[in-house]
Amino acid sequence: MSALLDKLIDAFEAMPSIGRRTAQRISLQLLSRNRVAMRALAAALQQAAEQIRLCEQCRNFSETEICPLCSSESRDRTLLCIVETPADQYAIEEHGNYRGRYFVLHGYLSPLDGLGPKELGLNLLPARCQGVEEIILATNTTVEGEATAYAIAEQVRSLPLHMTRIASGIPLGGEIEYVDGSTLSAALQGRRRYEH
Amino acid sequence: MSALLDKLIDAFEAMPSIGRRTAQRISLQLLSRNRVAMRALAAALQQAAEQIRLCEQCRNFSETEICPLCSSESRDRTLLCIVETPADQYAIEEHGNYRGRYFVLHGYLSPLDGLGPKELGLNLLPARCQGVEEIILATNTTVEGEATAYAIAEQVRSLPLHMTRIASGIPLGGEIEYVDGSTLSAALQGRRRYEH
Repeated sequence: MSALLDKLIDAFEAMPSIGRRTAQRISLQLLSRNRVAMRALAAALQQAAEQIRLCEQCRNFSETEICPLCSSESRDRTLLCIVETPADQYAIEEHGNYRGRYFVLHGYLSPLDGLGPKELGLNLLPARCQGVEEIILATNTTVEGEATAYAIAEQVRSLPLHMTRIASGIPLGGEIEYVDGSTLSAALQGRRRYEH
Repeated sequence: MSALLDKLIDAFEAMPSIGRRTAQRISLQLLSRNRVAMRALAAALQQAAEQIRLCEQCRNFSETEICPLCSSESRDRTLLCIVETPADQYAIEEHGNYRGRYFVLHGYLSPLDGLGPKELGLNLLPARCQGVEEIILATNTTVEGEATAYAIAEQVRSLPLHMTRIASGIPLGGEIEYVDGSTLSAALQGRRRYEH
C-alpha cells in the first residue's frame, strides 16, 4: 500500500470513534471521489487547531478572546448555567429556550485523573458571578456530576445569589413502568404542584 | 458556536460514513484533547490529496509513477489479478497468498453512471498483458461484477493467455442450511474432486 495512504488511514484511525475499517473506507473513497473535501477538511483542522482556544469569560471554545455569546447584549447576564462540556452547552442552546450565559467546566471533578477545582476553572467562578442572580447547576446527573455540582456550590456559597439544579425525573414520552428505580424515586421526590 | 468549529464539523460531516452527531463528537474531543492528532490528520490529508495518483501499470493508488508492487522483482509477472477497487486489492494482498500482480478498475461497468470500458482502463489492458499467462478475474460476484468480467474477457480474448474466475461457493465456516439458493447452486456446479 502507498505509504502516504497508510499515513492517511493511520491519521483517521487516531480520531475518536473511528476504527481501522472505517478509516480505510473513508480514505479510499475520498481519494477516489473527493479530493476537494480532503483539502477542505485539512484546512479546517489546521485552522481550528491553531485558532480555537477558550473564551475568557465562559471557557467555551472560541476563536476570539470573548466568544460571541458572552459579548452579546441580548443575553440575560443575571443567569449563569454551568455545564460539563461544550457539547452540553450546544445541546441546551439548541433546545432549551435558555437566554442566559454559560460557564463550561470541560469535565467533572476527578482528582485521580488530575482534574481538580482549578482545572475545571472553579477559581474563576467568583469573578464570573458579578451581577449574576441565579446559577443553574447543569452538570450530569451522574455521581461525578453531582459531586461537581456540590463543589461548585461550595465555591460560590458566600456570594449573594441563589443556586438551582436542573430537574431530574421521567423523560418526556417515558413510560413509568420502564424507568429505573433511582430516576423514579427522584421524580417522586421532585414532584410539583399540578397546575390545571 | 464558534465559526471555525462549525466549519470543522461541516468538513467532518462531508466525509463518507460520518454523520452530524459523530462529526460534532469528533471535533469537540479533538479540540479538548488532541490538537497533535488534528495537525497530523491535516498534514496527511493535504499530502495525500496532492501526491497520490494512479500507478501507470496497475492503476492502484500510488505516490510514485509505478507503485512498489509493480516495480517489485519478486512478484510473478505471468499472473495478473483484476479487481474492482483498491480495497479489494488490499484484501487479497492481506489474505490471499497471491504473488502475482494486479490491475485495478476503480469501479464496474455502469454506462448510466458514465463508467464505460475506457473509464475502467480496459483499453490499457492489452499492453499490461505482455508476458502475462493467466488473468484472474476477481471482480465481485454481483450482476455488475459478472458483466464487467465478461467485458474484460472480450477485451483480451485475442491474447495468448488463459483466464480464470475466482471461485464461488459456500464461505468457509458457512452452514449449508443458511446459504442462499444461488450460492448453493454455484457451489454445486463448481464442485471439485475430493482429495483424500
